Amino acid sequence: MVSFASDYTTGAHPEILKRLGETNLEPLPGYGEDVYCQSAKEKIKKVIGRDDVDVEFLVGGTQTNALIISSMLQSYEGVIAAETGHINVHESGAVEYTGHKVITLSEHDGKIKAKELDAYMEAFYNDESYEHMVIPGMVYISHPTEYGTLYKNEELKALSEVCKKHGLLLFMDGARLGYGLMSKGTDVTLNDIANYCDVFYIGGTKVGALCGEAVVFTKGKKPKHFVTHIKQHGALLAKGRLLGIQFDTLFTEDLYFEISRHAMEMAERLKETFLRYGLEFFIDSPTNQQFVIVENEMLKLFEDKVVYTVWSKPDKEHTVVRFVTSWSTTEEDLAVLENCLKG
Amino acid sequence: MVSFASDYTTGAHPEILKRLGETNLEPLPGYGEDVYCQSAKEKIKKVIGRDDVDVEFLVGGTQTNALIISSMLQSYEGVIAAETGHINVHESGAVEYTGHKVITLSEHDGKIKAKELDAYMEAFYNDESYEHMVIPGMVYISHPTEYGTLYKNEELKALSEVCKKHGLLLFMDGARLGYGLMSKGTDVTLNDIANYCDVFYIGGTKVGALCGEAVVFTKGKKPKHFVTHIKQHGALLAKGRLLGIQFDTLFTEDLYFEISRHAMEMAERLKETFLRYGLEFFIDSPTNQQFVIVENEMLKLFEDKVVYTVWSKPDKEHTVVRFVTSWSTTEEDLAVLENCLKG
Amino acid sequence: MVSFASDYTTGAHPEILKRLGETNLEPLPGYGEDVYCQSAKEKIKKVIGRDDVDVEFLVGGTQTNALIISSMLQSYEGVIAAETGHINVHESGAVEYTGHKVITLSEHDGKIKAKELDAYMEAFYNDESYEHMVIPGMVYISHPTEYGTLYKNEELKALSEVCKKHGLLLFMDGARLGYGLMSKGTDVTLNDIANYCDVFYIGGTKVGALCGEAVVFTKGKKPKHFVTHIKQHGALLAKGRLLGIQFDTLFTEDLYFEISRHAMEMAERLKETFLRYGLEFFIDSPTNQQFVIVENEMLKLFEDKVVYTVWSKPDKEHTVVRFVTSWSTTEEDLAVLENCLKG
Amino acid sequence: MVSFASDYTTGAHPEILKRLGETNLEPLPGYGEDVYCQSAKEKIKKVIGRDDVDVEFLVGGTQTNALIISSMLQSYEGVIAAETGHINVHESGAVEYTGHKVITLSEHDGKIKAKELDAYMEAFYNDESYEHMVIPGMVYISHPTEYGTLYKNEELKALSEVCKKHGLLLFMDGARLGYGLMSKGTDVTLNDIANYCDVFYIGGTKVGALCGEAVVFTKGKKPKHFVTHIKQHGALLAKGRLLGIQFDTLFTEDLYFEISRHAMEMAERLKETFLRYGLEFFIDSPTNQQFVIVENEMLKLFEDKVVYTVWSKPDKEHTVVRFVTSWSTTEEDLAVLENCLKG
Repeated sequence: MVSFASDYTTGAHPEILKRLGETNLEPLPGYGEDVYCQSAKEKIKKVIGRDDVDVEFLVGGTQTNALIISSMLQSYEGVIAAETGHINVHESGAVEYTGHKVITLSEHDGKIKAKELDAYMEAFYNDESYEHMVIPGMVYISHPTEYGTLYKNEELKALSEVCKKHGLLLFMDGARLGYGLMSKGTDVTLNDIANYCDVFYIGGTKVGALCGEAVVFTKGKKPKHFVTHIKQHGALLAKGRLLGIQFDTLFTEDLYFEISRHAMEMAERLKETFLRYGLEFFIDSPTNQQFVIVENEMLKLFEDKVVYTVWSKPDKEHTVVRFVTSWSTTEEDLAVLENCLKG
Repeated sequence: MVSFASDYTTGAHPEILKRLGETNLEPLPGYGEDVYCQSAKEKIKKVIGRDDVDVEFLVGGTQTNALIISSMLQSYEGVIAAETGHINVHESGAVEYTGHKVITLSEHDGKIKAKELDAYMEAFYNDESYEHMVIPGMVYISHPTEYGTLYKNEELKALSEVCKKHGLLLFMDGARLGYGLMSKGTDVTLNDIANYCDVFYIGGTKVGALCGEAVVFTKGKKPKHFVTHIKQHGALLAKGRLLGIQFDTLFTEDLYFEISRHAMEMAERLKETFLRYGLEFFIDSPTNQQFVIVENEMLKLFEDKVVYTVWSKPDKEHTVVRFVTSWSTTEEDLAVLENCLKG
Repeated sequence: MVSFASDYTTGAHPEILKRLGETNLEPLPGYGEDVYCQSAKEKIKKVIGRDDVDVEFLVGGTQTNALIISSMLQSYEGVIAAETGHINVHESGAVEYTGHKVITLSEHDGKIKAKELDAYMEAFYNDESYEHMVIPGMVYISHPTEYGTLYKNEELKALSEVCKKHGLLLFMDGARLGYGLMSKGTDVTLNDIANYCDVFYIGGTKVGALCGEAVVFTKGKKPKHFVTHIKQHGALLAKGRLLGIQFDTLFTEDLYFEISRHAMEMAERLKETFLRYGLEFFIDSPTNQQFVIVENEMLKLFEDKVVYTVWSKPDKEHTVVRFVTSWSTTEEDLAVLENCLKG
Repeated sequence: MVSFASDYTTGAHPEILKRLGETNLEPLPGYGEDVYCQSAKEKIKKVIGRDDVDVEFLVGGTQTNALIISSMLQSYEGVIAAETGHINVHESGAVEYTGHKVITLSEHDGKIKAKELDAYMEAFYNDESYEHMVIPGMVYISHPTEYGTLYKNEELKALSEVCKKHGLLLFMDGARLGYGLMSKGTDVTLNDIANYCDVFYIGGTKVGALCGEAVVFTKGKKPKHFVTHIKQHGALLAKGRLLGIQFDTLFTEDLYFEISRHAMEMAERLKETFLRYGLEFFIDSPTNQQFVIVENEMLKLFEDKVVYTVWSKPDKEHTVVRFVTSWSTTEEDLAVLENCLKG
């Protein structure tokens, strides 16, 4: 069985396991105060190209979203997101659990538009009773989005300007950021993101790590006593080395970008294969998630050979199927898939 | 430098790293639905010796405490703990963050007494205005405690009876459970714990894993939709295999008990060494944490050679120092320590 | 100046003030344990016509919504509401503050449709990853709605059936319930509401009281230790008599229904007046809130004479204006309004 | 039956009811934006004697405590209180429900000592792992305390200095403040309180109002968007006039102080009566709550004649009984009590 079900179906990039083994017996302080966390932070700062950033490591995506949002917002503030945003749909209400409302805007291929955000905020502050509503304090975007789509630099710039105008923080969920950075579908760089956002994260779990997300606060926006916030959320690892060593490895000799580039190459090949067999895509995704429309009958071809994720059922005859590549996707995997399509 | 600072200063038991490597390329479903989680659960059930238990894996101790307490209590209920209980002191208010009060009882070597619990509950329900107070719904104990001490079977039995009498759930924090089970200082077995408690956990992080705690619900007490609770707390790993493989390894060929027995042996040797050099203990701990009273001058002997944790300063001339053993403590480590004591 | 701005712009019905005065010196126990609370509860039960209901008094609407929702839901559950529902828009996120998500359905004149609710729930449980979402536990409806509209018996019945099918509680926000009961626009009685809903409230604040809402739990659904829930939310009045005496008065000699009938009569007259002057309505409201579309120019006619609420601006030339009647609206008030319209 | 059970057993001071009647038909804006709220705020500012204060009205004590604490603390901070503090004992965990821990210090006649607070804070910041604990952000004191005792100016000054030294806000719960201000047992004035505290409240419910507490923020400490905080907690009255008119009346012609002085006079007389009959006091209270130690047998004397509150049972033969005076206590009430004592 070959799996394209997601980018978290295999373990870690072998280099990470190797480093975990090599450092295993070194006694290190706990709770993120070890040399590997320190070294990884420096390497990430360097690759971002800014000095005024603070890097912190957390374990997983939902945890990171809830922690960032609740630690940066005032208790009466809410966070604006696309209606398809991960925090609004697939996190079991983790943000609301911390007391904050997710305020939704229409989505356009998983993205929100600066103009619509501006219109929402203008209407909000023009409403005489706005203090009886949830006051927006932050905008959440994902890049790549839940549909694999990407923002362009001009879009990020526009969002950033609207945020500044209305006193909103801009937060980018980068659970799959590597694929966005290595995609040909956008001109957005890591440095651009640090310029436009107040906080974002560089996803590890879905980009070759066993677990881990590297949160980047820019422009001095890191909340005071952030370690206490982490601990209060039950998110502080005693063996913080697990995160430090992984990110130190990922940001040594550009491994993070290597992994992402490889997955993007595999995704491009996957796309070509599907096109060659006359299949259509549900959405034009420039990253490692590909959403293919197949006739229900066709699903039998994959049986016992290829694992995928059923995304939706647009009508009775068709299914939208998601195929995802990762660090561990091989040419052999693609060959198995193509063999299925040959029927 | 040799470290006795804690049981989380080195990485994982090598067998765990080996298994992570061997299984690394297997495509597995995410979120704890993989075969290793399943297998680990079965092995843990077997070693407990009861069928009516449910096992779930979480990442760390504070997270586990907050999740268990908040998912098992009604929203108006609080949890009773010794004033020295970890949830009351060193978790940055993670329990209160979920809305529940920690109600404290006096501690006796880190433990609470069934009689005092009973007296508290009797007084509580005799107070006419008890509905204006926080209604106790659960008792939290740690075993070993924060001082390394252990409950005896008759103590657990008595606590369990008082809990039943007053409608309280009994929850044992077993972050260092292995050391408690392998200690000669108590007659309490894993099966006893499952009999007396409604929920407890088998700590992995401090007993040879990179991270991970195995929560055991007994007598059908697992909350409905517990996966949703986990997700809502940001505690669900996409690569759930990280926990499954670790616990599957720990409960294969009794590795968990091996690790704990080894650390206990090292702790016994450590104790003997200190006694031989005429040192006294702050508390009589039968587990892997040893609290030694040293003259401040003496601390210089350890400089640049041995890492420890400063526990407290009982007076101006003395310091209480904590030494902890683990899976990775070696005879060489003990020899270095003894050399220091020789001066 | 005559005010149609809302139904909370004047004080209490004079009979309430009279009773507060008459009972003022009687020493009574606090926290709702007085004879007037008891008597009011009995009278409300009687008028509902069911024995299996529990009545509790709270101070205001937002407080009541947040308390009912958070005390009846499990911690991982959310509440479904129309996107225009008060809890979703004008309560500053009071529900989310208690940790629960408000899940929105499309609104139809402020109401939700049983069919759409059923479709949502069917899709929800057919989604393999529904445990990664917020699990719906309750449906919130308002009657009258925020637009003054009303459910019909068959609509309530259908909603109730869908709720039972999917294990959802049905909760009716009755902040303006009196007007709904006295309106000719529906066949729904108080007894019907008690049959179909698991919980609802009979609004006092907007129906002639100084403050106060009477919560009615049906079919034994009152949460255990509800007084503790109230206290925990800071909603328990020391002088509980303030609520008891008010509701005892409102439910003596049908005063509550008298007040509502009077306001409805005034609303009918108001409607006729507007129609006579050729004005159109934004929505066809059968209750005490009337939404009139006026040309912006026309607003000058009301200046310094009549107070109203600006509801929305459908286009550049028009404004939707809300006029509300209450226990204190008089024929003289209507005459002043008509004089304005005469220009 | 004559009641000394508490200061909330009768209704409001007649002047308040009179004003509610006189203003009843005036149409006023809702949510605290009426002229009476405005006028009451000005009068309170004047009587405090400082311009740099902000006054806001809330409904009850527990609500006020929870709202002040949660709106002024950062999410990771806790509040320090005497172990007997109302927020720690009799508010059903309302503070913890908002996510904040109550950290307790020893009580001395219901008060905390500046030296002990300083020692706690010194030890806290000397602990290397203080970021793994709850970081204290505020100190809560009550004046009068739960035992009726009072702080002296020098005590308040010392507490205020320790708070400034460690970056703590100082908050005084003044649910019974009037009695403290009119007592001969302290030199503390309203102006002193405003000088030393960052926030405090002037209790109405227990000092002659039907309900209501006037919160005073000093030195610009009022949280941004406080109205939104109030609404989010379900604490905003639609008919805000109910609070405005009451406090406007209480602070017209010194009624608040008159009420308090009267109750204090009655309390003095009560005290003398008890002393004359050879009874002893459990605590030396200089305010309107008197705690008398009586032989259990003696309680029969009060049967069917006088209502009191059982406070505690110090031994098998004795009971501590609380007698409380208020605006409505009369000489006749005292005569009935004395008659009981005559036996």
